[in-house]
Amino acid sequence: MEQQIENKKTIEVCFTPILYPYKLIKKDFVVIIVDVLRATTTICTAFQNGAKAIVPIANVEDINKYKNNGFIIAGERDGIKLENADLGNSPFNFTKEVVADKTIVITTTNGTQAIEMAKDADSIVIGSFLNLNAIGNWITEQNKNVIILCAGWKNKFNLEDTLFAGALVEYLSDSLNFNLNLSCDSAIAALDLWTIAKEDLLDYVEKTSHRHRLKRMVLDDVIEYCFTPNVSEVIPAYIDGKLIDISEK
Amino acid sequence: MEQQIENKKTIEVCFTPILYPYKLIKKDFVVIIVDVLRATTTICTAFQNGAKAIVPIANVEDINKYKNNGFIIAGERDGIKLENADLGNSPFNFTKEVVADKTIVITTTNGTQAIEMAKDADSIVIGSFLNLNAIGNWITEQNKNVIILCAGWKNKFNLEDTLFAGALVEYLSDSLNFNLNLSCDSAIAALDLWTIAKEDLLDYVEKTSHRHRLKRMVLDDVIEYCFTPNVSEVIPAYIDGKLIDISEK
Repeated sequence: MEQQIENKKTIEVCFTPILYPYKLIKKDFVVIIVDVLRATTTICTAFQNGAKAIVPIANVEDINKYKNNGFIIAGERDGIKLENADLGNSPFNFTKEVVADKTIVITTTNGTQAIEMAKDADSIVIGSFLNLNAIGNWITEQNKNVIILCAGWKNKFNLEDTLFAGALVEYLSDSLNFNLNLSCDSAIAALDLWTIAKEDLLDYVEKTSHRHRLKRMVLDDVIEYCFTPNVSEVIPAYIDGKLIDISEK
Repeated sequence: MEQQIENKKTIEVCFTPILYPYKLIKKDFVVIIVDVLRATTTICTAFQNGAKAIVPIANVEDINKYKNNGFIIAGERDGIKLENADLGNSPFNFTKEVVADKTIVITTTNGTQAIEMAKDADSIVIGSFLNLNAIGNWITEQNKNVIILCAGWKNKFNLEDTLFAGALVEYLSDSLNFNLNLSCDSAIAALDLWTIAKEDLLDYVEKTSHRHRLKRMVLDDVIEYCFTPNVSEVIPAYIDGKLIDISEK
């Protein structure tokens, strides 16, 4: 990890945002933000359906400022739509009819805080199973080290983001640009968990705690969708305070 | 996780000390501290060889105070024996000849900080592969929730402590006292990684970053020993500022 052989790049997974300041990779890196259930899946869906831009904000208090300026507001805390928001955090809310050519302001429990934290990266992009291979291709083109930053759940490890991390590590490890032997234990663990899970992904996901949390809240209609790989080519990137799709569509 | 069915107990793994304050389990819990390479393996070895007590201290600066009072001092930082210490952190230093009936003051990079952090637990005990089943039996008798606190490496996830956590989760999941479905994603992940690794543990450990770190420092003679399960029945417990063996030998 400390040394790089033949200029190959390393991959590190931060299982929660609180681990991000302690990352081993300190320079020449891109950050992939992951919050599979549901923020980053929702963001990818919005761009897939033609959203012009998404402004992520960390503080609920700032919502009204944007609302008064005519933006669409999407927001939740602990999975519940905020009272003064137009949309919650379900990807199914972000239909073409609602989001095409619109700028959306979004605040979520975990995802937007992760974006705030990663501002020292060369680039920040948004990953979900929906755009897995597209993100993998984009990363390979960058020729940089990679930090996969899992939003987690209130600074706790969660399996769903880790599985995405593992799927992305698997994709990248097929590239000659990366040397998994130099990467961190976190990347190896994520890959191994993904290797177990991918045989029957939805069955594996059944045992995750957040899936049960969503089920209790009757929000689990999105599970199958959130674990569907490669239905979108979007590359949502954080540039100048907002997310835009930088894919060459 | 949030609710307990039939009074069954839950298991949570903190992959690094920095995650400990965010643990889900807030009361009625015991903490198992794990630093397989090498602090907790070394502590178990010391008690197996007859040490009377071990005083863990977090600050290197406090060493001289103890040294001037005739204690045996064991200490390292980043794997290197401290200049004014009698012993480093290799379990092979802690022979019967050196430690029997002695009180040892120990400071290590990760392990002693973890003990400091876990002082809100009902009990703190020290786990390693050496005393895996003994710790498992002791936990089962306590009838409490369980937090396995991995010392990690400078607040990063590491595989070796996670594998121990998984082995302990496996042992506990055979007990009727625990319901793995209520436990955290961290416990499920640790168990799944252990399930992969245990088929050929030393081969799996080859790929961990800390194993490579020790190899570079020519400290890897301890690897096989550190992953040898169930050669000791000691239960090192932290009581009134020091570790003592509470097993009924």
